[in-house]
Parts: sequence; C-alpha cells; structure tokens
Amino acid sequence: MKKDFGKLAIEQAKKKKGKLEIAAKVKVENRDDLSIAYTPGVAAVSRLLAEKPELASTIKSNAVAVVSDGSAVLGLGNIGPLGALPVMEGKAVLFKEFAGIDAYPIVLDTQDPDEVIKIVKNIAPGFGGINLEDIAAPNCFYVEDRLQDIGIPVFHDDQHGTAVVVMAAVINAAKVVNKPLGKLRIVVSGAGAAGNALTHLLACRDRSGYQISKRLCVPVGDITVLDSKGAIYEGREGQGERGKGLDLYKKELARFTNKKKIAGGLKEAIQGADVFIGVSKANLLTSEMVKSMNQRPVIFAMANPVPEIDPEIAKKAGAAVVGTGRSDFPNQINNVLAFPGIFRGALDSGAKTVTTGMKLAAALALAGMVKRPTTENILPSALDKKVARTIAAAVEIEAGG
Amino acid sequence: MKKDFGKLAIEQAKKKKGKLEIAAKVKVENRDDLSIAYTPGVAAVSRLLAEKPELASTIKSNAVAVVSDGSAVLGLGNIGPLGALPVMEGKAVLFKEFAGIDAYPIVLDTQDPDEVIKIVKNIAPGFGGINLEDIAAPNCFYVEDRLQDIGIPVFHDDQHGTAVVVMAAVINAAKVVNKPLGKLRIVVSGAGAAGNALTHLLACRDRSGYQISKRLCVPVGDITVLDSKGAIYEGREGQGERGKGLDLYKKELARFTNKKKIAGGLKEAIQGADVFIGVSKANLLTSEMVKSMNQRPVIFAMANPVPEIDPEIAKKAGAAVVGTGRSDFPNQINNVLAFPGIFRGALDSGAKTVTTGMKLAAALALAGMVKRPTTENILPSALDKKVARTIAAAVEIEAGG
Repeated sequence: MKKDFGKLAIEQAKKKKGKLEIAAKVKVENRDDLSIAYTPGVAAVSRLLAEKPELASTIKSNAVAVVSDGSAVLGLGNIGPLGALPVMEGKAVLFKEFAGIDAYPIVLDTQDPDEVIKIVKNIAPGFGGINLEDIAAPNCFYVEDRLQDIGIPVFHDDQHGTAVVVMAAVINAAKVVNKPLGKLRIVVSGAGAAGNALTHLLACRDRSGYQISKRLCVPVGDITVLDSKGAIYEGREGQGERGKGLDLYKKELARFTNKKKIAGGLKEAIQGADVFIGVSKANLLTSEMVKSMNQRPVIFAMANPVPEIDPEIAKKAGAAVVGTGRSDFPNQINNVLAFPGIFRGALDSGAKTVTTGMKLAAALALAGMVKRPTTENILPSALDKKVARTIAAAVEIEAGG
Repeated sequence: MKKDFGKLAIEQAKKKKGKLEIAAKVKVENRDDLSIAYTPGVAAVSRLLAEKPELASTIKSNAVAVVSDGSAVLGLGNIGPLGALPVMEGKAVLFKEFAGIDAYPIVLDTQDPDEVIKIVKNIAPGFGGINLEDIAAPNCFYVEDRLQDIGIPVFHDDQHGTAVVVMAAVINAAKVVNKPLGKLRIVVSGAGAAGNALTHLLACRDRSGYQISKRLCVPVGDITVLDSKGAIYEGREGQGERGKGLDLYKKELARFTNKKKIAGGLKEAIQGADVFIGVSKANLLTSEMVKSMNQRPVIFAMANPVPEIDPEIAKKAGAAVVGTGRSDFPNQINNVLAFPGIFRGALDSGAKTVTTGMKLAAALALAGMVKRPTTENILPSALDKKVARTIAAAVEIEAGG
C-alpha cells in the first residue's frame, strides 16, 4: 500500500508545531551568562560590528532567509504566504540537515515585485544569503535580477537549483546515450522559472547576456523552449494576454534558442530531438512524440506530482534514460541535490553573488559524483550528504574563496 | 577584579559565530522523511493552511520577530542594523531560555518609519508576534501605534517591557515605604521610549487615551516627566529644534501629567517628590536633590551603564529604596523579567494585541512574586525562570485565552 505522505505531513506538523525551532548556542544560567550574552557585554560586540563588520561574528555569517510571496507554491499555485510557510520551513530543515546552514522562512504579505525587492533589501543586513522560493514567473526574474547588487548572494532556487541539477542530469545522460553535449537538440517544455534558468545554463549563459567561455562550458547544440502557446521563436507575434506575443524574458530566450525557428506545439518541436525536459504539466508528452525523437532519446519529465509522461510509457516508447521529480522512480531530479551545497560554498567563500560560473561548477561537481552513469543511475541519491560538501567545495573554488 | 564582559562577549561571539542557530525538529534520513518534511507531503499542509489557517501548525504559532532599525541600540545610539544584530540575537536567546519562544532577529537597512511599518506588516504572516527593539523615539511611537491592527501582537520592549518592570518595582517600593500608590508624586527623567510608556502605565492608560477602570488599576498621584529641556507641561513653548516646544507625544503626556505645571529642571521638579525614575543619563541626580524629596524617597536610576546617581550616594542622601538597571547592585530593574512572559501569554492566548490590561496584569503578577518586599528586595531575580511562567499565566487570563 502506498503511504499517504500528505496525511503524515499534516500529522507531523500538528504534533511538532512546525518543523523548525531556534536553539540558543549559549546558556543563560547565572548573572555572568546574562552579562555576556546580553547587556552589558553585548554592547562591545555591537560597537565592534558597527565599526568593523568583519571583526565580530553573528548569526549573519551562516544565515539564509528563505523568502516567498506564496505566488507559485509547489504545484498548488498562488496560495499566499501562510500556505507557503510549511514549504519554506521544510526547505529550512533541508538547509540545516544537508549543509549546516541556519535558514529562516520569511513569507510575505505582498506579491508586488517592487515591494518584494524593497523588503529583501531591507532585511538583508541580518542574513548571509537570500533563497527566493516559489515566486511566480515572470516576477521571479524581475525580482532576482534587481537583487544581484545587494552584497550577499540572492538565488531563486526554483530557477537555478533546478537548472543545476538538470544540467548535471543532461551531462550524465549524454554519456549514457553516448552523444556529445554540443550536438544535443533539446526541447524544454515550460518557460517559467525553471525553464528559463535551465535553458540559460544549458547554453552556458545568463539573462544579462554573460556567456561562459566555450573552453569552460560546452553549450548544448540547440534548445527549443515551449510555453503554453507553443514553441518560442524570435518574432512570435500575438495580441495581449491571449495572443502569442512574448514577454521580455521570453524574447530574451528567443534570441539564442530555436535556431531553426520551429513553430507549432510540442508535437512539431520534439521531432528528432535528443532530450525532452519537462517543467510544465502532467501528461503533455505522448508515446508517439517519444517515438518521433532521435534514437536513444532522454526524457526528464519533472512535472509534480504527475509527470509529463509516465516513466513506464516513456521506456516502452524507446526512451533510453528517464528521470522525474519523484522519489519512487529512478533518476530523481531533486533540487535538494543543489541548493544546500551552493549556499554552503557561497557563504564560505564570502561571494557577493552566485555567478553563472558557480552554478556551472556545481553542476559539473554533481555530475562528477556518479563515476559511471547508467540508464537508471545518472545522479546521486537526494539523501547522500556527501553531495552538498562536494558541491560546496567546487563552488567555493570557483568563487575564489 | 571586575570581569570585562565586553571582552568576554566578543570572544564568545567569535568562537560561537553568533548566539543562535536553527534546529530541525524533524530528521531527514530516508526517502520517507524527505517526502513528509518536504515534497510531496508538505503540499497537503500548504493546502490545508491556505484554506483553514487554524487547522495546521507551523513555526508561526511560536515565532516572534525581534525587529530593529538600529537607530537606538542600548546606550550606543544610532549604530545601524549590523551593530544592532548581536543585541537582537541576545534577545532571541533570552526569549528561548526564559519562555521557550522561537525568536528570530530581523535588522533593517532603513530607518524610515513608514518603511519599517510596511516591512513589519509584510513579514508578519510567518510570525506569531513582533518584538520591536532599539528604535529611537519618537519614531518608535509612530511605528508601534500604526502596527496595532495587523492581527498579531506588536510590542516595543524598550517601551512596555521597561514600563511593566518599573510599575512592579513602584508597587513593591510603595509597600516598603508604606505610602499608598494613589498618593505618590513621581518624577520621570527622560521622555523617550521608556519614559513615555512607563508614565502611561503608572497612570493606568495608553497613548490612544484608553484608561483602565480605577477599580482595577490605581493611577499614581501625579507624575512629572522631564526631557532634556526640563519639565514637560501643557503649553510649554519654544521655537524649532532648539526651542522647548513639545512634539505630538510629549503634548499627549502633558495632557495628564504635571498637574501643577511645574516648570524648570530636575532640581525644581524633584522637590517633595516620592519617587524618582531615571531613564535618561548618567549622574543627573545629585545628593542635594535626593535630600529635597519627600521622606523615605524611592530612587530608580536606570541609565546604563552609569546610573543617574550612584546607589551608594543615593542611600547616603536618605533614599529608602534604590534600584538600577545593573546586576551588580540590589533591585535590578531588567526587562528580561517582563518580555518573555508577556509574549508567552500573548501567544498562548491567541491575543491580537498586547493591551494595557495585559501589561498591567504582567506588572501585578511580577510585583506579586515578592511576598514581602524589602529595601533590597523589591523584584525577583532576573534569572528566576518561574517569573516568565507566572507572568504568562496572568497575561493569558487577562487576554481571555
């Protein structure tokens, strides 16, 4: 019998009253304790910090705010800050368990992107990094891009965590099917947070136009990205909300993807493709579509909880490698493989941003952890606690820390 | 030899890298753990919370944000958010140690009161209460007053924590000197956060004009409040910053204090007074002034670290009861006696604000813990962990929880 994780999660939340607590690292049992942890002793720490921030330590050096406006929570959509809170708590638990990071959930009572930016900037002094989470596209791009200059790493995990793990998965799957990365034709179904970021990383670039040297990063052959209106290509036109026009972020994607300007839907785009990456909706990909792909196709169907295609059906249709977001199938593509190590490396190096180079370093380190990738084993287990350490080390080196 | 608590505090901060950490209440060791603490299980908790907030638990039920803009940190003044951070961490440690509350420090990169209000409102969904801290007057009044309708208790500890402990101290000191509360003439030196709030509580009222029934709360006889320009009275005039004119909050104080319209400085105001309450500056109060007070005067000299008068000098001048903010003299008047229990009671009762009645209940409960007050023992020890429980129970009853 399958376990009802939802029921178990509700029971756990009720019993534990949340999944996090604050722990004091110092005891307050006598007058001296109180005089050191609080007044008058703390005044000396304050004075020192106000003058020379680098000379005295606070929780800031190990603290990450997990910030959400509740606008795109898991597959549940816009359920607001209270609904987002248990997810952010869970995330904070993973930060601690996998990377020893003190993460605290901050859920916001606004979804105005300029307000979100202002709040994050204003609460930043107490944190060493900001993990944005479950903020809907395209606001997530606007918010994240405008927070890159606040002096601490700001990282939207739904974008880059996914991108890093998918890039590692693509690198290792390419080894399994014995095709060179630079020749892969990839179809990305979904142009939201994850679709946008993973397309950039697979192309060795970022939204600002920065491109990693081809000596260091091999861009995949070509990528076609689809949104709910079909394939994205430069010049795709339409009127208003219901038309096929492209927003700023899709226009930017169109500039370096879909070189052949494939129009139409998934059926048209997927013909002859080597890799399908789904960050979209349940059951979009059919058996026929898989059969129309190039030989030994790779399918990453990551819609949650129901993937774009059932892994069994994909296999029967000829897929050589199949991955999903689920833990009950092989090749789970789970962000927990990336974000703890990336933040650990960023915090330890004192990096002011998470650069595209650091994301690439993380992806390569993650891929490198599987020495001999096979059909059913392209990524380490989501529970392997060596992963975060390995990624952190690679990120720290790349950051020059 | 006296201990150098500042040096010890700096050493502690460096060694421990801050005084707080996040602890996970759930373990993530196998796939089921991950599926319950995070996806897919957490989706059920999110859905439930989004629909029926009262049915599922998160950290919110026990979480307090300790928010500061760094504009009035201890006696150090406007040293900014980084300087404020170790103080807020220390406060969070006390919340945990004395009341089991999960408090997290949030230090702000803005001192614009309207921005502070907006940020607190917007981060409120993840917290069960907000402890404002070290925000300079008069902004602290403006900010706190405008945050009373956000649905969770917002409490500026520098105001009300001090007010509650001082009220308890006055109640018990009055017993020691055998004078009825309703006849006490009190001089308050300092019209900042603490001076404003304690004057209101001693008068059984709040800034909104609300007054507790005289059956439940005995207002003291009369209070004269002094700021740096002298005694505050209705109609005190002056031009601009350097004049003696009153701001909004001092005008409001003038409406119910200083019935005799005493003008002049401390020397004039203190003649014949029963109680001196100093929340101002070192060495303002002289031996001669104490001698000019009514018989058996009570002196609370709380300027930190150097009090308004040395306790030994006050005693020699005839003071019957002397209290300070310091732990190395008898009768320490320390906020840690109040805020943990007040928040515990407020959280447990589900109160939406901390009312004047709840503050009074806290003060009475605190005073009641010393069965037979004496000259050198008017308050419980700041380390007595029964205090928070006792206050919490009283606050919860008053809140109707």
